Amino acid sequence: MQLGMIGLGKMGANMVRRLMRGGHQCVVYDRNPEHVQRLVAEGAVGADSLDDLAGRLSAPRAVWVMVPAGEATETTVQALGQRLEPNDIVIDGGNSYFKDDVRRAGSLKNRNLHYVDVGTSGGTWGLDRGYCLMIGGPNAAVHHLDPIFRTLAPGRGDIPRTPGRSTVTGTAEEGYLYCGPSGAGHFVKMVHNGIEYGLMQAYAEGFDIFRHANSENLPKDMQYDLNLPEIAEVWRRGSVVGSWLLDLTAAALVENPDLSNFTGAVQDSGEGRWTVMAAIEEGVRADVLSASLYTRFRSRQDHSFAEKVLSAMRYQFGGHVEQPRQ
Amino acid sequence: MQLGMIGLGKMGANMVRRLMRGGHQCVVYDRNPEHVQRLVAEGAVGADSLDDLAGRLSAPRAVWVMVPAGEATETTVQALGQRLEPNDIVIDGGNSYFKDDVRRAGSLKNRNLHYVDVGTSGGTWGLDRGYCLMIGGPNAAVHHLDPIFRTLAPGRGDIPRTPGRSTVTGTAEEGYLYCGPSGAGHFVKMVHNGIEYGLMQAYAEGFDIFRHANSENLPKDMQYDLNLPEIAEVWRRGSVVGSWLLDLTAAALVENPDLSNFTGAVQDSGEGRWTVMAAIEEGVRADVLSASLYTRFRSRQDHSFAEKVLSAMRYQFGGHVEQPRQ
Amino acid sequence: MQLGMIGLGKMGANMVRRLMRGGHQCVVYDRNPEHVQRLVAEGAVGADSLDDLAGRLSAPRAVWVMVPAGEATETTVQALGQRLEPNDIVIDGGNSYFKDDVRRAGSLKNRNLHYVDVGTSGGTWGLDRGYCLMIGGPNAAVHHLDPIFRTLAPGRGDIPRTPGRSTVTGTAEEGYLYCGPSGAGHFVKMVHNGIEYGLMQAYAEGFDIFRHANSENLPKDMQYDLNLPEIAEVWRRGSVVGSWLLDLTAAALVENPDLSNFTGAVQDSGEGRWTVMAAIEEGVRADVLSASLYTRFRSRQDHSFAEKVLSAMRYQFGGHVEQPRQ
Amino acid sequence: MQLGMIGLGKMGANMVRRLMRGGHQCVVYDRNPEHVQRLVAEGAVGADSLDDLAGRLSAPRAVWVMVPAGEATETTVQALGQRLEPNDIVIDGGNSYFKDDVRRAGSLKNRNLHYVDVGTSGGTWGLDRGYCLMIGGPNAAVHHLDPIFRTLAPGRGDIPRTPGRSTVTGTAEEGYLYCGPSGAGHFVKMVHNGIEYGLMQAYAEGFDIFRHANSENLPKDMQYDLNLPEIAEVWRRGSVVGSWLLDLTAAALVENPDLSNFTGAVQDSGEGRWTVMAAIEEGVRADVLSASLYTRFRSRQDHSFAEKVLSAMRYQFGGHVEQPRQ
Repeated sequence: MQLGMIGLGKMGANMVRRLMRGGHQCVVYDRNPEHVQRLVAEGAVGADSLDDLAGRLSAPRAVWVMVPAGEATETTVQALGQRLEPNDIVIDGGNSYFKDDVRRAGSLKNRNLHYVDVGTSGGTWGLDRGYCLMIGGPNAAVHHLDPIFRTLAPGRGDIPRTPGRSTVTGTAEEGYLYCGPSGAGHFVKMVHNGIEYGLMQAYAEGFDIFRHANSENLPKDMQYDLNLPEIAEVWRRGSVVGSWLLDLTAAALVENPDLSNFTGAVQDSGEGRWTVMAAIEEGVRADVLSASLYTRFRSRQDHSFAEKVLSAMRYQFGGHVEQPRQ
Repeated sequence: MQLGMIGLGKMGANMVRRLMRGGHQCVVYDRNPEHVQRLVAEGAVGADSLDDLAGRLSAPRAVWVMVPAGEATETTVQALGQRLEPNDIVIDGGNSYFKDDVRRAGSLKNRNLHYVDVGTSGGTWGLDRGYCLMIGGPNAAVHHLDPIFRTLAPGRGDIPRTPGRSTVTGTAEEGYLYCGPSGAGHFVKMVHNGIEYGLMQAYAEGFDIFRHANSENLPKDMQYDLNLPEIAEVWRRGSVVGSWLLDLTAAALVENPDLSNFTGAVQDSGEGRWTVMAAIEEGVRADVLSASLYTRFRSRQDHSFAEKVLSAMRYQFGGHVEQPRQ
Repeated sequence: MQLGMIGLGKMGANMVRRLMRGGHQCVVYDRNPEHVQRLVAEGAVGADSLDDLAGRLSAPRAVWVMVPAGEATETTVQALGQRLEPNDIVIDGGNSYFKDDVRRAGSLKNRNLHYVDVGTSGGTWGLDRGYCLMIGGPNAAVHHLDPIFRTLAPGRGDIPRTPGRSTVTGTAEEGYLYCGPSGAGHFVKMVHNGIEYGLMQAYAEGFDIFRHANSENLPKDMQYDLNLPEIAEVWRRGSVVGSWLLDLTAAALVENPDLSNFTGAVQDSGEGRWTVMAAIEEGVRADVLSASLYTRFRSRQDHSFAEKVLSAMRYQFGGHVEQPRQ
Repeated sequence: MQLGMIGLGKMGANMVRRLMRGGHQCVVYDRNPEHVQRLVAEGAVGADSLDDLAGRLSAPRAVWVMVPAGEATETTVQALGQRLEPNDIVIDGGNSYFKDDVRRAGSLKNRNLHYVDVGTSGGTWGLDRGYCLMIGGPNAAVHHLDPIFRTLAPGRGDIPRTPGRSTVTGTAEEGYLYCGPSGAGHFVKMVHNGIEYGLMQAYAEGFDIFRHANSENLPKDMQYDLNLPEIAEVWRRGSVVGSWLLDLTAAALVENPDLSNFTGAVQDSGEGRWTVMAAIEEGVRADVLSASLYTRFRSRQDHSFAEKVLSAMRYQFGGHVEQPRQ
């Protein structure tokens, strides 16, 4: 079928490629005309403005917005809303906050436009591996887009079937899932990323313990010089902690066992924060997800003010003068 | 080659089977004669005592101890030590504390016996999938046992090679690894299990947030009835959080989406505790690993005394009378 | 001066009493006429409706709202707003979310009414001990109310002066503080309560460790039967952990060392949640404040779904059948 | 009565002074003869060696060891043990690990010497304020030392009596407590310090949130420039979070509101670590105490290896290049 794509960055461009490989027609737009040209050269239809894009699509139009979450998405969705006609569909494929989805869906609905929110996992690997899609919005619109989702998703591949699923129908095994009404797709994707933070942190703490297993503070006969790349590699086979994230860790460590090419300042995107907030709103513990988020906060600071408060108290009550140490 | 195996529980018995499939000869012993008989029927040589086992093995003997960690392993290793001769090898394949390994290795060394500690991952799935092995001890003894390790390990299988490993040699890609001197194998396995706790907890918190996404405390248009088995399934394809533990979660949820067959009281074995203690001894943060451990502690209690202290304070300062609530 | 008080619960009634002791005139209203009568008997002017209350106050009116945070406060402030005249002042003395203050202040400002937010600490002890007041809102209105704040606050008392304050002016030493524009008072009070959660949890965990110091899992000669009430008491003198919360703990423990009169289900009010959310919005770690909040969430559940997920995974990978245990 | 004191640092010297003020005779020794001379000038009896000290005390001798925990204490106690006679008493007043107490008490008991472990809180303020003492060891020896403990302890002072204690006897209200057999004193002191970490961290996180309340990431009308010294001060009167540690925080902040005189690298002594280990050995949650400890670990590092592992994974899966940021 036909799909408009706005935003041709790493993610958007590869999604267009995967869709074209799957026989779909893509009308593409990006603020940067070079991005448009590159995909036109690969077979896409180029547009040089939102109006142009809307004009080149046949009704009912389906337009996928793949621009940075936040202001860029907000502006684009609103601008697009003014150029579309009743029954057209806007798809937000970025990492929007689900509360924004609910608001936007309501505002577009007033004009009889449908808004579909899609959480997309797969990163730069998605072109070949496929994108895992978590979808929210009005049922009919989502159903209409099924061919698009099916093509973008990884499909069953050679992954062993989950025992007990023989009688279960649905698209989850194809790698895409309708999760519920507006916001549900991004809600599920949000928690997905929250879990990702937790998984990453679990590995990170473990390897940090390995890294310091030769600390001089330990008894002489219990100091170990461990080979971290080899440990990550051996766990890829038959161990309980095998995962795609471990594969990546193994790749990073074999390249540079000290990871000296990284400063260790780790960004966080919104999803980790929103996941913790959602847990709090629900009254659900999220110890591990919070700790993972906080580690990232801390990693970007030289010293926290909290730490200075601790030092200040220690100085006051005992005359301890704090010194940096290795 | 020839190997003695003591302890024919789920793990030990399957390891014997995998070794025999690989052409090795196994002399087996268990306190329960039925366990011995079952494996004899499958081709093993049976022994009815430790002495008998020692007698049936040719020097230098290699005996794998696969009994519960703690007292059972301690007793068995000591009893075995008295029945072996210089240059024989004792292998502890259980989940021993690495500090016990160091002590035991030292004590056996006085009698010229070699002690090899092997952390084994793979659980009941290992017979077919192979066991991921993390090995510590004297280099020569470990080298001598290489054929055994190679057979038990999963091998390369069809797992894609880690980019950048083309020039790396060693056995990690075969699924077994020599980690270092005595205790190193169990140290690595210990942290492996600590990471496992963290990974499990990350998924658990995420699904808990999903489970309560329809809470009445949330705004009406932001309550979602999510299908947990389908979410777990869709993530198995192309998502960043794919892992073997996720596969298990998907299997459990498809069987019983409410998990109502579980009370939620979760045991912890020693490794999680030791991992946190090791982190503290090294001066390394382990927020996520600690939180995962504490969740298990709490899960086995009706109410903690700490919670009563909180209630008592609240009662004192504000006359709050605490009530259980849903 | 003259003050209207709406809401004559434990807090509101005692504040009226303290104000009257300080020579102020109080016009009081509560939905429950008995509450009004009781204070009229003690010298207050009674009102039987909001209109009546507004009529009995001379302009510029100052009305303190002391009803439960959330809907009750929202309704009362709005209803009051419709009955007041330009330059009158509404004071919200409850535990409102600071974001609601900002919104309400803006909406009242349109009608030339002033909104002052006051975070109040002191609980049922405040009548005699005084109330610690954290104040936000327009400067002039706050200044106008100074006599009220001064009377409600504890004053300097016999608390030793902080070293280095000799040249500092301001009201903080009197026990009340102007914190900034609208919302600032409740923001400071919110974090105050967040800290309170953390302090309480620190004591609670410590006493939990004491409580289990005689656990049979510990070596025989390292099991201690500790006397918790005596420990709390001894710390009240000369120790680093002395505090008002410790005083309360000592009182609770001497009454019932087992705290068997409490189930351990601990409520949380909004402030703990908002504090963690504020930290996340700012990108600041709040490990201890989060953990304290989560402990309360967990204390009100029989078992979390997260724990069942853990059990389910364990069952899948190792056939572990989880059992409740003591 | 008569007491020997070994170790005349800040703590030991002041304890000698407080004892002499209380009418006791002190025989003092320190490796540094100047420290001895200073106290001799104030009325103490000086000794120039352990032998000399032992010779100047009349049997049964009581010798208080107040040297750094760990090796110094170990060496001193052992050396002292060789110079004492049956029924003499060794008091370890430092911050020893309770497991070391149990071992030392056993070894001295073989020679009929009594070992008393005393946890001491009060820091540099103890000379005037008194020392809160937590005492373990054989009952008779502890009883014999009662006059010493009574003098060192703060006494009842003008602290209001805990409601409900009128029928309770014992010394807790005097500020010293017999906690139980060997190790019990240091066990209680250990947890005391663990709690102290948690209390400090709770304040520290709260003030960190205040510090960043004017962050540009927040909505314009919800940015607050808070006056931290004034907030700490106002809470000293009538608030729920009042404590001695808050008093110290107020003093530190009034001196330097930015705390720019501290780097923020915070040391941890053994007690915080041992407290968490004790909790784990008992199977008791200690979320807040652990988080407080980990904050200190992290505060002394530039970047943790864990953080680099996170960056490395992010780079692998999304091509994110991590940058340090403010």
